[in-house]
Amino acid sequence: MEIPRNALDPRKIEEIKQRFPETPEETLVEVFTKAALAKEAWKEVSVLKTEKKNTVLLKAASLIREKAEEIKKANSKDMERGKQKGLSKALLDRLLLNDKRIEGLAKALEDVASLRDPVGEGETWTLPNGLVIARKRVPIGVIGMIYEARPNVTVDAFGLAFKAGNTVVLRGSSDALESNKILVSIIKEALKDEGITEYAVNLIEDATRASVLPLIRARDYLDLVIPRGGAGLIKFVVENATVPSIETGAGICHVFVNHDADIEMAVKIVDNAKTQRPAVCNAAETLLVHSQIAEKFLPAMAEVFAQKGVEMRCDERSLEIIKKAGYEAVPATEEDWATEYLDLIISIKVVDSVEEAIDHINTYGTKHSESIITSNLKDARKFQEEVDASTVYVNTSTRFTDGGEFGFGAEIGISTQKLHARGPMGLRELTTIKYYVFGEGQIRK
Amino acid sequence: MEIPRNALDPRKIEEIKQRFPETPEETLVEVFTKAALAKEAWKEVSVLKTEKKNTVLLKAASLIREKAEEIKKANSKDMERGKQKGLSKALLDRLLLNDKRIEGLAKALEDVASLRDPVGEGETWTLPNGLVIARKRVPIGVIGMIYEARPNVTVDAFGLAFKAGNTVVLRGSSDALESNKILVSIIKEALKDEGITEYAVNLIEDATRASVLPLIRARDYLDLVIPRGGAGLIKFVVENATVPSIETGAGICHVFVNHDADIEMAVKIVDNAKTQRPAVCNAAETLLVHSQIAEKFLPAMAEVFAQKGVEMRCDERSLEIIKKAGYEAVPATEEDWATEYLDLIISIKVVDSVEEAIDHINTYGTKHSESIITSNLKDARKFQEEVDASTVYVNTSTRFTDGGEFGFGAEIGISTQKLHARGPMGLRELTTIKYYVFGEGQIRK
Repeated sequence: MEIPRNALDPRKIEEIKQRFPETPEETLVEVFTKAALAKEAWKEVSVLKTEKKNTVLLKAASLIREKAEEIKKANSKDMERGKQKGLSKALLDRLLLNDKRIEGLAKALEDVASLRDPVGEGETWTLPNGLVIARKRVPIGVIGMIYEARPNVTVDAFGLAFKAGNTVVLRGSSDALESNKILVSIIKEALKDEGITEYAVNLIEDATRASVLPLIRARDYLDLVIPRGGAGLIKFVVENATVPSIETGAGICHVFVNHDADIEMAVKIVDNAKTQRPAVCNAAETLLVHSQIAEKFLPAMAEVFAQKGVEMRCDERSLEIIKKAGYEAVPATEEDWATEYLDLIISIKVVDSVEEAIDHINTYGTKHSESIITSNLKDARKFQEEVDASTVYVNTSTRFTDGGEFGFGAEIGISTQKLHARGPMGLRELTTIKYYVFGEGQIRK
Repeated sequence: MEIPRNALDPRKIEEIKQRFPETPEETLVEVFTKAALAKEAWKEVSVLKTEKKNTVLLKAASLIREKAEEIKKANSKDMERGKQKGLSKALLDRLLLNDKRIEGLAKALEDVASLRDPVGEGETWTLPNGLVIARKRVPIGVIGMIYEARPNVTVDAFGLAFKAGNTVVLRGSSDALESNKILVSIIKEALKDEGITEYAVNLIEDATRASVLPLIRARDYLDLVIPRGGAGLIKFVVENATVPSIETGAGICHVFVNHDADIEMAVKIVDNAKTQRPAVCNAAETLLVHSQIAEKFLPAMAEVFAQKGVEMRCDERSLEIIKKAGYEAVPATEEDWATEYLDLIISIKVVDSVEEAIDHINTYGTKHSESIITSNLKDARKFQEEVDASTVYVNTSTRFTDGGEFGFGAEIGISTQKLHARGPMGLRELTTIKYYVFGEGQIRK
């Protein structure tokens, strides 16, 4: 670990050791030193002009292209270790950086450079006593990111956070350590080339479980922590963080096919929501079907699922219809309604009303993305108003919940909580507001 | 405790008991039952039309006026108990409800009724593929409030939360229990009179310490928890809550008198910031003075403070100047810079530059409200950009940080965190956003 000496006060280290008696000292030193460096660096980064930030992003993009061979070499070490460790094919695929993906990393930074900088946007008004108030967007500060396998998050998270004037402490997966290290070193090079502190980006190299707790409790240094990963990680952060956090990602998304749905449209949408990319959070996991349309719709749907190898886990009524139509299906258990498969599996349930569909979704959903297929306005409105989720669709696929698709240019995650950010989080969600008040000697009466 | 039977599933109670082994069962039953009732009530409250919400608020206001005698009678029990318990004069004053304050409670509800409802506000755009996205403000859900002595918070918190379509679980102080009970019963009457569920408002009557932990961890029921009170309460909530929370209130606010300040203006502003209402969070606690103006400014300031009985706790340089001018003062300790006095005490320090002032504030401040008195634009801008606080003033008093003063009509607290809300929190901060997407069969490619 290369860190400047004396970045952290030795007395502070003693106090920290007492707060985290079970964490190895070198983990604490690394986490708190890098958090302190990020906080110090923020003073410089928070006031950078947009132009300068863009220059750094473009420089990093071009360095990534230049150093593609080095990146692939580092990545191959991770891949090798992953294979030996027996990582699944899907995980290895997420880990892989090939020429196309490296170009994607560079392109992503260029895209962020082209986005409008939200810092400084705002509104202003004048009070009766002459005080002028300006409410402006400002950077949040130091953002901690805890994420799994995919090394592209390293580049994306830095790019978005930096463009919004923040510094980052990244804690990626140990599986991607070599890839993350080289990517961070390239970003640091771009920063230094432009005369900006390299501590705008910081990578926690101790990617053991031990480094998570001190990071999410480093309240004196971090302003926000964003976990991106499985339900276990999210739960751990929610239960243990004292740094404000944003819950992301878990998506038990539903499509509800109402009694008056256009069957052809419904089949196309449900198919897309389930199979277009089953491993992502906005893919559908449960299909709800109105009982009045079930006998017509389910056989048509089952045909597509059977063709595409989607396992159907059904309640009693849907099971009977699908089997009668000659397709294979299995009974669903209570657990199925609460499971995010992220795979070619779907749970299916017949309901008797839009109310029952809404109740089911509000009970088992994760407040992510929900869709109704219907042709009547009343049910569409009812569903949209009463389903408690970040994004509620009518007659389209849940797969659209995405910063790029929504026109935000990029996203740092999809928030499933209600505080601060909800749905796709773009640059704006990486800022906070600040009041600037200008007086001429006014006092309060 | 009057609660409907079976409001909470008995199996759920068993699970909850295991999660909180140290909390008395009846506390858990009360907290979780009321949280569950609030969540159920939210289905109804979240979709109420603005008109209907206003009718309830006005009805509650008129019932409060009608029942002023009953309110005073209940309040006198709290006052009696408080006196016996030996509560301080300041605390007893906060607890008191007299005719003027009861009128104030009614008026506050009427003011909230007159505010614009933020629910449903938003923006809309159309994607290239024809999808129409509407990003609208919607209620947050169930809001928990934990607060101390002042019974007016009971009415204000309900009013603001309800106007924004939320339901509340209130956990006030045991000292104010009788007052809170009658106020909540009056609000419930207003709700029932208008045919709306009385569980839009819920008061936890077990105001022991034991009820705080389950409330701030009732993640299945609450969407937000707002603690209002002393540093101890805020810290406990921040360290233990799993429900998203907003930190409010602690204010170590500074006024920095720069070398080129108008001395008369500076004296007037510092006096106002310190003495106009010393017990509130936006009052100043520390005065920073540029060394080039200290010998002129400090004697003038000390004269006012001496007249008003403000104790001055000084660093070495300011102590010397003030004593030489013939005023009493005492040396400050390191602890003074980190203390929110909420009293007629001020700490004073001489600094050599605007940079040193900014550093001091960013080290000891609580990110609340900070002010610079200066006549040059460069330092004013630097101070405003680099001081990390919700509100940064030039040439005016920190006392203006207030929802009413800012023109928001009312506030539920002042946020000193950066996530979701910062500074005075009005109706808008009690909402979240939701995406409504309308398609005609579009699928993702």
